Amino acid sequence: MENSILIKNITLDDKVTDILIKGDTIEKISERIDLVANKVIEGKNKTLIPGFVNMHTHAAMTLMRGIGEDMLLMDWLYKKIWPTEKKLNDEMVYWGTKLACLEMLKTGTTCFNDQYWSLSHAVKAASEMGLRSVQPFVILDLFDKERWNKIKEDCQKAYEESAGWNKINRFAIGLHSPYSVSEEMLVWGAEFAKANGLLVHIHISETKGENEDSIAKHGLTPTKYLDKLGVLGANTIAAHCLWIDDEDMEILAKRDVKVVHNINSNLKIASGYKFRYNEFRDAGVTVTLGTDGCASSNNLDMIETMKTTALLQKGWRGDPTAMPLDELMNLTTRNGGIALGLNTGVIKEGALADLTIIDTDSYAFTPNISFYANLIYSANSSCVDTVICNGKVLMEKRFVQGEHEILDNVNRLYKKLL
Amino acid sequence: MENSILIKNITLDDKVTDILIKGDTIEKISERIDLVANKVIEGKNKTLIPGFVNMHTHAAMTLMRGIGEDMLLMDWLYKKIWPTEKKLNDEMVYWGTKLACLEMLKTGTTCFNDQYWSLSHAVKAASEMGLRSVQPFVILDLFDKERWNKIKEDCQKAYEESAGWNKINRFAIGLHSPYSVSEEMLVWGAEFAKANGLLVHIHISETKGENEDSIAKHGLTPTKYLDKLGVLGANTIAAHCLWIDDEDMEILAKRDVKVVHNINSNLKIASGYKFRYNEFRDAGVTVTLGTDGCASSNNLDMIETMKTTALLQKGWRGDPTAMPLDELMNLTTRNGGIALGLNTGVIKEGALADLTIIDTDSYAFTPNISFYANLIYSANSSCVDTVICNGKVLMEKRFVQGEHEILDNVNRLYKKLL
Repeated sequence: MENSILIKNITLDDKVTDILIKGDTIEKISERIDLVANKVIEGKNKTLIPGFVNMHTHAAMTLMRGIGEDMLLMDWLYKKIWPTEKKLNDEMVYWGTKLACLEMLKTGTTCFNDQYWSLSHAVKAASEMGLRSVQPFVILDLFDKERWNKIKEDCQKAYEESAGWNKINRFAIGLHSPYSVSEEMLVWGAEFAKANGLLVHIHISETKGENEDSIAKHGLTPTKYLDKLGVLGANTIAAHCLWIDDEDMEILAKRDVKVVHNINSNLKIASGYKFRYNEFRDAGVTVTLGTDGCASSNNLDMIETMKTTALLQKGWRGDPTAMPLDELMNLTTRNGGIALGLNTGVIKEGALADLTIIDTDSYAFTPNISFYANLIYSANSSCVDTVICNGKVLMEKRFVQGEHEILDNVNRLYKKLL
Repeated sequence: MENSILIKNITLDDKVTDILIKGDTIEKISERIDLVANKVIEGKNKTLIPGFVNMHTHAAMTLMRGIGEDMLLMDWLYKKIWPTEKKLNDEMVYWGTKLACLEMLKTGTTCFNDQYWSLSHAVKAASEMGLRSVQPFVILDLFDKERWNKIKEDCQKAYEESAGWNKINRFAIGLHSPYSVSEEMLVWGAEFAKANGLLVHIHISETKGENEDSIAKHGLTPTKYLDKLGVLGANTIAAHCLWIDDEDMEILAKRDVKVVHNINSNLKIASGYKFRYNEFRDAGVTVTLGTDGCASSNNLDMIETMKTTALLQKGWRGDPTAMPLDELMNLTTRNGGIALGLNTGVIKEGALADLTIIDTDSYAFTPNISFYANLIYSANSSCVDTVICNGKVLMEKRFVQGEHEILDNVNRLYKKLL
């Protein structure tokens, strides 16, 4: 018998309803469903939301959580992160990605857009944990021609191997950034992606210095430079876009580039915070949110990300009506699905069964005048009770299979990185 | 036999230790204590920190959590908060304060500096919940001379009644603000406090408009105006101080005024965010943190408050070394004790036994390279396992006596406010 789950008496958009999941799909949403299912979940005192989509992270960097605190950016990068990354091996990436997946389940995320090393080991970890993910082959040549042939061969090979991946993990191209990848490889990567119908995940204009360097080197901002190379398109997912002028904005809108805002990371390493959300929205750009890796922002919590995002938009604009609750929720759910071309991030019949169940029986949801205000501004992610991805229950009542095995292995391995 | 608690094998400042509590006091801290106690708490995989001190809140405003979201400040105040407050009664304040205390226990706070109405009912609630608090009689005359005599009489009466309070609740004077209280009553309140050795809790320079109005009316900033009146002293606790010039800073330092920064509230209602922490610290001012009431910032979570505080200091200064972890922890613990003149916020023999136990056996503390980085940047307040205040266990393994009675009563009452 096909996998089926019946969720009874759960609150959805302020109404109590039943939901039937069959296979990987939401089959039926109705006030009362009396069908037999393999599994029944009681939804009393609980509210259903779409699973969150974390649109920018480096999952296995959970291993480096707290490794470089309160440091200047260049000290942090040169003295901490890069020396540490040299010691990483496949086993570490495997367990680091598992820890990231565990954390994402605990905080209600069902889908993530990754960018890190040891691709096949990251994919193995994500597959075993059951989360949906986009996993890029990362191109980062540091302008070294000698690496080009090997990168091209490795990328081709990785792409071919990806045919054997669990179907909920999708292969993509990671172009690290215009300041770390040569023109040749930026163009090659973008063309490879286009030829094979793949997404491209790239960092753009994270820091002011990056823009200044780009103008000094190319006479163009990173966005204009990438556009000149023909790299940008509807399949481009651009992380950060924190230092974007009006012309850049127009280009990103025209090319239908998807933008990922990562406020906690931007603040913590002091890259900036005046993300031009209203202008992106009004230009028709699909804006999404991400956490970045745990070396820069320390966790993968999308509820916290929503809160900080909204507080900063209200704060820097001096406008308490900025970033209203309904738009905020869309950034972490519906827009993620749109950006990745997946039928996730929405709760409707026919959509993928990627769902998060929130327990509202607590002080944080009392009084429950506004569920979304409570979720984002009052509660923390410990309100996440149960997580379903691709029609499978991955966490139930906060229990995730194999949790302590993951913690034990990370505790065994991280010391080798110090 | 006197109340005694023995905490075994707990981590304190990266060392495993035992702690003995007798009565309301930390009696002994030693690697191994083999004495008999009324209660033994096993501290394996747990870390001990001082209970947090929330230095500015309006506790019973938990009742208005989520009542006015994404609104312009004046609409929020005139259309939502003030009309709602007119419907408040003593019973509501009692249960609202209980909900606040429940939330504070769940998030590791043992002491709070309150400012709200129905004083005796707030005190009753706090006493029953066992938290330490400072509870002011609030003076807010809106420049109406007709109210003066009654306010003075009521204040005197409330002060006399406070002799009968549980000793962990202290009477204080609340002067709402220089823009809502007449010169006569500001001076009277400050003198009453001085004559009786009481703290004064006041809002200063929360918004830019408040400063502009003060200059228009008095030719002076709020700080300079209050100083001219002789209101400021070492017993003054000044909430916000967000718009402070160099001369104000010098006055606040000279008078030894204690300052409370409330970043989540400041951001959410868009009052500002460039709190001059480094300058206050360098001027020798005792800086503390608060949450403000739940109508403006939605929760009473001091761990989250520390995170947002640090992110904003790093962010607006463009300096990732700003607000390092050790200073940040002091703001919510030691400095709160200093500001309130209480031997709380520190863990040492002879200090008050106001303690919070953190459970580190989770993804958020894995790897545990830096406990404080994990506590503040990775975890959320669900890591708070057990809370002891004044030598009594108020929450154990996240269980608080009477939790559902509080939620049920708030759920019954808040609808009358809508």
